Amino acid sequence: MKTLIKNVTAILADGKAKAVNIAVEGDKIKAIGEVPADFSADMTIDGKGKLAIPGFVNAHTHVSMTLLRSYADDMRLMDWLENKIWPIEAKMKKEDIYWGAMLGIAEMIKSGTTAFADMYGDMEMVAKAVEESGMRAALSRGIIGTAPNGAQALEENCQLFENWNGAADGRITVMFGPHAPYTCPPEFLRKVVEKAQHYKAEIHIHLAETATEVKDCLKQYQKTPIALMEEVGVLDCGVLAAHCVHVNDADIKIMKAHNIRVAHNPCSNMKLASGIAPVPKMLKEGLCVALGTDGASSNNNLDMLEEINLSALLHKVDTLDPLAVPAAQALALGTENGAKALNYADVGVLAVGKKADITLFKMEGPRWTPSYDLTSLLVYSANGSMVSDVLIDGRIVLDNGRLTTIDEERVIYETKKCAERLTKN
Amino acid sequence: MKTLIKNVTAILADGKAKAVNIAVEGDKIKAIGEVPADFSADMTIDGKGKLAIPGFVNAHTHVSMTLLRSYADDMRLMDWLENKIWPIEAKMKKEDIYWGAMLGIAEMIKSGTTAFADMYGDMEMVAKAVEESGMRAALSRGIIGTAPNGAQALEENCQLFENWNGAADGRITVMFGPHAPYTCPPEFLRKVVEKAQHYKAEIHIHLAETATEVKDCLKQYQKTPIALMEEVGVLDCGVLAAHCVHVNDADIKIMKAHNIRVAHNPCSNMKLASGIAPVPKMLKEGLCVALGTDGASSNNNLDMLEEINLSALLHKVDTLDPLAVPAAQALALGTENGAKALNYADVGVLAVGKKADITLFKMEGPRWTPSYDLTSLLVYSANGSMVSDVLIDGRIVLDNGRLTTIDEERVIYETKKCAERLTKN
Repeated sequence: MKTLIKNVTAILADGKAKAVNIAVEGDKIKAIGEVPADFSADMTIDGKGKLAIPGFVNAHTHVSMTLLRSYADDMRLMDWLENKIWPIEAKMKKEDIYWGAMLGIAEMIKSGTTAFADMYGDMEMVAKAVEESGMRAALSRGIIGTAPNGAQALEENCQLFENWNGAADGRITVMFGPHAPYTCPPEFLRKVVEKAQHYKAEIHIHLAETATEVKDCLKQYQKTPIALMEEVGVLDCGVLAAHCVHVNDADIKIMKAHNIRVAHNPCSNMKLASGIAPVPKMLKEGLCVALGTDGASSNNNLDMLEEINLSALLHKVDTLDPLAVPAAQALALGTENGAKALNYADVGVLAVGKKADITLFKMEGPRWTPSYDLTSLLVYSANGSMVSDVLIDGRIVLDNGRLTTIDEERVIYETKKCAERLTKN
Repeated sequence: MKTLIKNVTAILADGKAKAVNIAVEGDKIKAIGEVPADFSADMTIDGKGKLAIPGFVNAHTHVSMTLLRSYADDMRLMDWLENKIWPIEAKMKKEDIYWGAMLGIAEMIKSGTTAFADMYGDMEMVAKAVEESGMRAALSRGIIGTAPNGAQALEENCQLFENWNGAADGRITVMFGPHAPYTCPPEFLRKVVEKAQHYKAEIHIHLAETATEVKDCLKQYQKTPIALMEEVGVLDCGVLAAHCVHVNDADIKIMKAHNIRVAHNPCSNMKLASGIAPVPKMLKEGLCVALGTDGASSNNNLDMLEEINLSALLHKVDTLDPLAVPAAQALALGTENGAKALNYADVGVLAVGKKADITLFKMEGPRWTPSYDLTSLLVYSANGSMVSDVLIDGRIVLDNGRLTTIDEERVIYETKKCAERLTKN
């Protein structure tokens, strides 16, 4: 399959916008700029008035929770979890996980996201949705070591790896998903590390999300969550660490030494009042910081452009430095760094030889006018509804606003049915 | 003119969503719920699958600066002003002010805003754009007392009042616009107060935006900007105060005593790294806090739903209280409180007898699914591109996404031309 994106403005690897043609062959970008004379496209996308960027990478979410969007908001964490989220999650069946994932994937593609890192239960259903939709994802089975099904969940993560790692033409990779230090004690984490090392898999974990977590960890283990993870061996596996809101300088040193990639979730951290992660400092120390939406119930959408915008705004006011996280850097967090965070070697920039994961924005209307600086317009003025076309692995999954691999109407119908059943009684 | 919005879901004055019909006659809402049998509509809007809310009120902007969108970002304040904004503003002519205003008004209507408070130079041009577009606005001539044209600007504000207050079927009101305490010394402000009192006009002013402003004010006058304004008599006029980021408890007491309405600009305050206004405290003390976008060059859009979303998120993380500024309150800041801030008696809620300033959102697609709580969906999940229809003063100004009073294509063409001319050399 050969696709030509004609006369498009593209933000290339050097961060500069340039008028080009993009030739896609199979799953890869074959040429940017002049198209080879012998390239005969099966499909042509008219890129006039459109901006091409690398697809967004959502480095931390729980996609099936999209089914819980707007179910419970503006509550205290434990009240929210104990009285709303956990009871409804206990009722969720395989079909809920599947349709919730499909809903979230539909939303992500429509807003320009081409890959995501996920952690939840029943991940076989999420993998199925990823495979069918043409999405790219790094999946992990969320494991609560202290729960009665802790050992079983770990076993399911192993099964997930065996069944799905490298599946869907390589679009699916599998990580291990121990939920957090406060739900997975050291002796349990050692078992997870053993399994991960056996499979040469990486680990996706929540770390230092709240001040309470850090305080409790210090009390129980006389170590911060980061230091504890180092001691237990988690950091030797290659780690994607969600949140890292409450990390100190020593933590950052440890993270750097182990090349921990951080999934920063500005919207979720704001909404749940968790705090503000020291992102400028982590970036300065050379850490790879990516962006995530977290689950829809703590956001409440999966729109990566909003996270990019928030990362640019939040750290300016937090550090009182208007130069913190400028637009181009914010965009890189949501694209290039996201790809690194998910351990993708050939994703995250528009360059020849890279995977053709491409998002096009329609540069139409007042919000794109005037046009002095396209990166500024994208990061500070546009929104996710302005995405027109999306390619993943060279395949057109959004065609002028229309999903090609997902029956959107059916997904909305089925998720509404699931939501009704879950909230009956 | 009679318009019927049929089978719509509306968020009514009690904050609850209800399936209703809305009958509009002339500039007012005539009925909500059952429509009188003798009501024969000239126009009918199919409200099925749409959410009706009171139009957003943008309580602080400089609409003609929309022409400078993306011209200069991620810079230090004085570098930004001295080397980018002021030099280009010095080149702006009447036509730039007019087309910039039209561009901003087009954007505001398309994202659901039905009224705005503005402060800039050459306000006759802005008034013209407001009149022609069908918008509602409270206009003030921005006055720099320390500038060579300070006295002339004050005179222009008087002229603006005489020419435009109550014009455009009452959609335009005029306030006085002394820019800020640091640009208008007390003796100059006294002259402004005298004029405002002569015309029985209110005052729109920037107050306590940055820590530097407060520090300098304390040094020069031994008073905070708020206390200084009280002493000078500004607060006796009825004041819409933009920003109020750096106000202490004593300031808040003074503001309460004088019924100062605050235009909080979360996005601008974040982007310029000004700080975080103590909004939950101001609300607790009973102040009227409204929301504004500020100018597009410090935002970079005029999307009020983003300000509503940010006000809900930012104050949660700032106070570490997940219950701060819940969704319904955030929505009220952007609608009902906005109307109060602009001194509109009959705008800001959907109720019989009120002005028909109504915004409809299309509740379509993944981001509105599932639908457990419509206010949550609107504030936390939706975006401004989902607005489908807008009525101002009973007139349909956005019809299924299409502007009816503005030639959008021409506005974009003309603003691009202005931008090119301004940046030549």
